[in-house]
Amino acid sequence: METKIEVLPSGSITSPRGFHAGATFAGIKKEAEDSLDMAILFSEAPCTAAALFTKNKIKAAPVLLSQQRLQNGRAVAVVVNSGCANACTGKQGLHDAAEMVEFAAKGLGVSPEDVLVASTGVIGMPLPMERIRDGISKIVLSPDGGHDLARAIMTTDTVPKEVAVRIDKELIIGGAAKGSGMIHPDLATLLCFLTTDASIDINFLRRSLKKAVDVSFNMLSIDGDTSPNDAVLIMANGMAGNETIVPGSRLADTFQEALDTVCIHLVKSMARDGEGATKFIEVTVEGARSTTEAGLAARTIVSSPLVKAAIHGSDPNWGRVIAAAGRSGVEVVESKIDLEIGGTCLVGNGVALPFHSEEVVSILNKNEVRIVLNLNIGTAAATAWGCDLSEEYVTINSQYTT
Amino acid sequence: METKIEVLPSGSITSPRGFHAGATFAGIKKEAEDSLDMAILFSEAPCTAAALFTKNKIKAAPVLLSQQRLQNGRAVAVVVNSGCANACTGKQGLHDAAEMVEFAAKGLGVSPEDVLVASTGVIGMPLPMERIRDGISKIVLSPDGGHDLARAIMTTDTVPKEVAVRIDKELIIGGAAKGSGMIHPDLATLLCFLTTDASIDINFLRRSLKKAVDVSFNMLSIDGDTSPNDAVLIMANGMAGNETIVPGSRLADTFQEALDTVCIHLVKSMARDGEGATKFIEVTVEGARSTTEAGLAARTIVSSPLVKAAIHGSDPNWGRVIAAAGRSGVEVVESKIDLEIGGTCLVGNGVALPFHSEEVVSILNKNEVRIVLNLNIGTAAATAWGCDLSEEYVTINSQYTT
Repeated sequence: METKIEVLPSGSITSPRGFHAGATFAGIKKEAEDSLDMAILFSEAPCTAAALFTKNKIKAAPVLLSQQRLQNGRAVAVVVNSGCANACTGKQGLHDAAEMVEFAAKGLGVSPEDVLVASTGVIGMPLPMERIRDGISKIVLSPDGGHDLARAIMTTDTVPKEVAVRIDKELIIGGAAKGSGMIHPDLATLLCFLTTDASIDINFLRRSLKKAVDVSFNMLSIDGDTSPNDAVLIMANGMAGNETIVPGSRLADTFQEALDTVCIHLVKSMARDGEGATKFIEVTVEGARSTTEAGLAARTIVSSPLVKAAIHGSDPNWGRVIAAAGRSGVEVVESKIDLEIGGTCLVGNGVALPFHSEEVVSILNKNEVRIVLNLNIGTAAATAWGCDLSEEYVTINSQYTT
Repeated sequence: METKIEVLPSGSITSPRGFHAGATFAGIKKEAEDSLDMAILFSEAPCTAAALFTKNKIKAAPVLLSQQRLQNGRAVAVVVNSGCANACTGKQGLHDAAEMVEFAAKGLGVSPEDVLVASTGVIGMPLPMERIRDGISKIVLSPDGGHDLARAIMTTDTVPKEVAVRIDKELIIGGAAKGSGMIHPDLATLLCFLTTDASIDINFLRRSLKKAVDVSFNMLSIDGDTSPNDAVLIMANGMAGNETIVPGSRLADTFQEALDTVCIHLVKSMARDGEGATKFIEVTVEGARSTTEAGLAARTIVSSPLVKAAIHGSDPNWGRVIAAAGRSGVEVVESKIDLEIGGTCLVGNGVALPFHSEEVVSILNKNEVRIVLNLNIGTAAATAWGCDLSEEYVTINSQYTT
């Protein structure tokens, strides 16, 4: 019997068995009281947990603390706030992150050692601890609370990003992510929480998360900057009662495929909601010498401000796509390149083909633009995602703290 | 006696003895007939010549041809056009570039082997050869033609960039550059022509050019993209009659200093004229472990779209400067960082210092913003230049070919 992966309607991180979440408005964000800025994710059963964190040398206090807590591969809850990143806050920041965890752990009746923490928002401001404590005490957990958590972690996001998939009517994986700026491979995510009721071996879980992130969050670029707060966490509570997944298990490959699906779904949602984005861009590079080279070329193209600006203006300036591939550092032989935009071939063997400018402009006018660049020097392929560069991106980011 | 380097009033690439230039409107650009889009630079005496070209794997036809011609270290003229980059044009492009050179050589009465070629403009379009030939035949050379050449190489530039300096009333170095977008270290220049009447050993000239480019064009970023057409050429005709400069010569150090001065002057002009720029940004990183690390950190900060957008909006979002340094790949110890913007300390030992937001906003409101980041873990320093990211950048680049 073939295994089946299905996307659940209205899925969230509380779709897997035994996960509860809740959120509140603690007054950390500047927005009106009807928004949310603090949340807790909690599992009835202790979880096997893994994470990937920012590679930025400047790591926010919650990243440093969660990294340390996760060394034992266990967690039972996460407390998170938006509006303040608790980054570049020195010793005070570490102290505040620890206190935030302790306060949440006390409320949940669990050990602080099993509670992770994440923050997102303005860099360089201390956490408003009184509001954090008040906020935590107000949070009410529920098995339907996933949607609220997805809203509570938003900053410049305009829509929450969440999804859940079911494997074979047996296991569920849920995910929620936030992020629409300061996003670039090396973990282009800001924050992502993944949950599953599967029972999974910790080493398998760590490798599986790394693989999923490599084809999803590490293939997303909004603006080339990376954050000190990036974190992708996964918690597996085993409440589905399956035989623990290890390499070679019946469900090992399907679990990986489902986790990839969840992460890619979230990444596409993030690309669509990139700061100021009016268009979703998908770039596939084929015929590369290796997957690494295909990925690097695809990411370089989708990150190029000139490619992004041209797509914003529906300008069929394909030379910028080729120039971006050329500067990516991967092997490129100009005379072998084929380029397709929205299914229309613009370049064959490195030379412009005759095309109807109007047709290409109408392809570029759509809100989803797909570019396929075939290097024709190998067999490897990779896909990257991003968005156009609009005047609105500049406006948003020129007035972030003021 | 101390040697003296002075900037000449209204200097140009024809300020050094024996250089002539001329320009015309050949109809390659879309602009009105009073603009210029073709030029020739010519030296009365044969020159020792060196160049650095784009590291983009996709190299424009004129780059490939000039690279080959320069292997012998000699040149007597350059023919250049704007409006069409002759890049991604395959065999036809190479043929056209060679014909452009032959036609110019014939008109000048010199060997095509001694003529270099450069193009800049839209990628992927063939050169309009009839207009190129007509244009070349119309060009009239003059010893005051440098200013016209500087105008003829402009694309989205709003002002010509040119300068000349005199060393000890003895030698002159002139320079003209164009470029305001698709600019990033690895040779962030698009086109730069340098001339001198000094007599210089070819090996000294090559090394000297590399050194000057490393502290100037390689420290400039406008938008993170690099072009297939980047080229920095230098021609030395020896007409000053000095003793040939070799390493250790009386004038060796002074020549290097003067060449650095010319290149940095051009780079600052380019940063001020970056596409859509409203502000000039200078970032100095001090206290790094090595000059390479200082340079990488400075370039990463000045390239960060979030830093650039914050400066555009005069938003004192200093956390983005620190985050950019953190992702640059260089060694950074958060608790040691000091940050100054416009002479005001915002961060000491990695933690925010109390500052008057109004004071910082008024500093950021100026059209020149200087940032000094001290990593305090070494003694090396480097400076990079760039500009803010404005809505206008997006507007310019979303409608480049249409």
